[in-house]
Amino acid sequence: MTELSRRHVLAGAAATALTPLVSSPASAAAPPVNTQAPGWYRYKVGSYEITAVTDGRNTFKFPDTFVLNAKREQVNEALAAAYMEKDTMTIPYTPVVINTGSKLVVMDTGTGEANFDRSKGVGGQFHSNLKASGIDRNAVDVVIISHFHGDHINGLITPDGKPAFPNAEILVPAVEWKYFMDDGEMSRQSSERMKGVFSGARLVFDKLNRKVTQYDAGKEVAPGITSVATHGHTPGHQSFVVASGSSKVYVQADVTNHPALFARNPGWHAFFDQDPAMAEETRRKVYDMLVAEKMMVQGFHYPFPGLAYIEKAGSAYREIPVMWNPTL
Amino acid sequence: MTELSRRHVLAGAAATALTPLVSSPASAAAPPVNTQAPGWYRYKVGSYEITAVTDGRNTFKFPDTFVLNAKREQVNEALAAAYMEKDTMTIPYTPVVINTGSKLVVMDTGTGEANFDRSKGVGGQFHSNLKASGIDRNAVDVVIISHFHGDHINGLITPDGKPAFPNAEILVPAVEWKYFMDDGEMSRQSSERMKGVFSGARLVFDKLNRKVTQYDAGKEVAPGITSVATHGHTPGHQSFVVASGSSKVYVQADVTNHPALFARNPGWHAFFDQDPAMAEETRRKVYDMLVAEKMMVQGFHYPFPGLAYIEKAGSAYREIPVMWNPTL
Repeated sequence: MTELSRRHVLAGAAATALTPLVSSPASAAAPPVNTQAPGWYRYKVGSYEITAVTDGRNTFKFPDTFVLNAKREQVNEALAAAYMEKDTMTIPYTPVVINTGSKLVVMDTGTGEANFDRSKGVGGQFHSNLKASGIDRNAVDVVIISHFHGDHINGLITPDGKPAFPNAEILVPAVEWKYFMDDGEMSRQSSERMKGVFSGARLVFDKLNRKVTQYDAGKEVAPGITSVATHGHTPGHQSFVVASGSSKVYVQADVTNHPALFARNPGWHAFFDQDPAMAEETRRKVYDMLVAEKMMVQGFHYPFPGLAYIEKAGSAYREIPVMWNPTL
Repeated sequence: MTELSRRHVLAGAAATALTPLVSSPASAAAPPVNTQAPGWYRYKVGSYEITAVTDGRNTFKFPDTFVLNAKREQVNEALAAAYMEKDTMTIPYTPVVINTGSKLVVMDTGTGEANFDRSKGVGGQFHSNLKASGIDRNAVDVVIISHFHGDHINGLITPDGKPAFPNAEILVPAVEWKYFMDDGEMSRQSSERMKGVFSGARLVFDKLNRKVTQYDAGKEVAPGITSVATHGHTPGHQSFVVASGSSKVYVQADVTNHPALFARNPGWHAFFDQDPAMAEETRRKVYDMLVAEKMMVQGFHYPFPGLAYIEKAGSAYREIPVMWNPTL
């Protein structure tokens, strides 16, 4: 027989009634360290070395319009199912870096160091974690941007307004460029949020003197890295198949936001999906493909390190995190 | 309409037919880094600072007797459901460190640096990752051992045979001590494996001149840390409730091995469970409690960082990993 009982396992709550074996000094020999591990994780896809690098996360009380077609209590139920706090959304940001052997490629760049209070450390960590991971941003050959939201492009620029990847070619989706850099499109925006996306993109790309290379969908944009049009979240939103040897990973960018909400509820429309119906159609197609192909997905807004397999769960999807490998 | 099609998303496989946008130099500006992140992760339980520190993992082709009461094909099905390689088991090791404010406590110590080829890096990483996490092993006040298997006690000793925590009190389960240090019990063992467990424990504790403090189940063994008898895996196996303020985490040690196999199949008997029936009974009781209390569990053999919630999945259990927090 085990001695286990409910009273025992809950004894922690009433532990003051017990006598500690060890006498307590006023404080431990060491103070709390009070820092988090540098947020990077490395894995291989064929001969390619991929480094997932967290930019941090944003935590906020969400408005009733956070999910356009779900009630707050439904969203809270989904959060509870993931053991997350109610009324509160946490969105992680995880760009990736791919060394193909012939190119050092950054995919998306995070929220930018200038845009967050570093002392709070909620975002803008991409560049410091990149450095901690042993990668020099001056050595980056190519930066591939999936779409023009600030959490993907702001890290192109340093806090003093300089190019963060001075030796890299900056690749942007042609459809995205045409749309967001069009003065007519900009002038027709009515929402403050959309005006902000337009002006934010200009702010970033003007600092690069608009020196970018536009790419189309379905092209090999870097060795073994093929763009896939996954429109809806933004007009030109792109994902990527990274293939080396017989291995592949699908870098989805924002096909879903946090999977606890939007893989589990692929029909939910997040307020940041510009064309929610198209975004949903894209989401279902991509996720059905990930299930059918048993293809790993790297999710920008997945919990770090953001690498998972997808399985069907009823009419929705569930992510199965890839086991952390402590050795490369 | 999106441009997405199955042909597009699989284009990576046939990408050689496409023209790269970027000409490829002979090699990237930077070579692969070829190292993994230091494996530690920090979180708070009330005012306590907990650091999960990976010791690495062991990967091996498993024998038909790996799960005593399941066939190889059933085990392979469970592995496939977790997108793990068939016929191959990977077992991670994750000790934890708890700073209660008044005590710096290590719980279990990993496989020991001397017991693995460090160049392969599969195990024995606890001490190096502990250091990387900002914790000096000389500052540790208390080491609490859950049970006497080598992957939990070998890290008590340095490769040159010295105490790895020279300033710490070493706490061991009284039942475990009585059993494994008993010469009569040792003499009655017939299996090579069990003889090895007995001699391994003596090897470690003799190097400490058997200077340990025995503790009983249901006691506050350190401030806010209460032992719970979870016998079966070994005769004196212990788990722990760590409680601070209104928060708790259940440090389960080896109530299950890898959850993909043994939380999903709580009735499976791993060959390293010394009393498999008692281990199963303990496992079901603990997991039912974790579900009912919605209590976080820290699993020694869970994928790093080993922190999860447990939910019922049919007559079995499923672990929901706690979202990685990039800031403390």
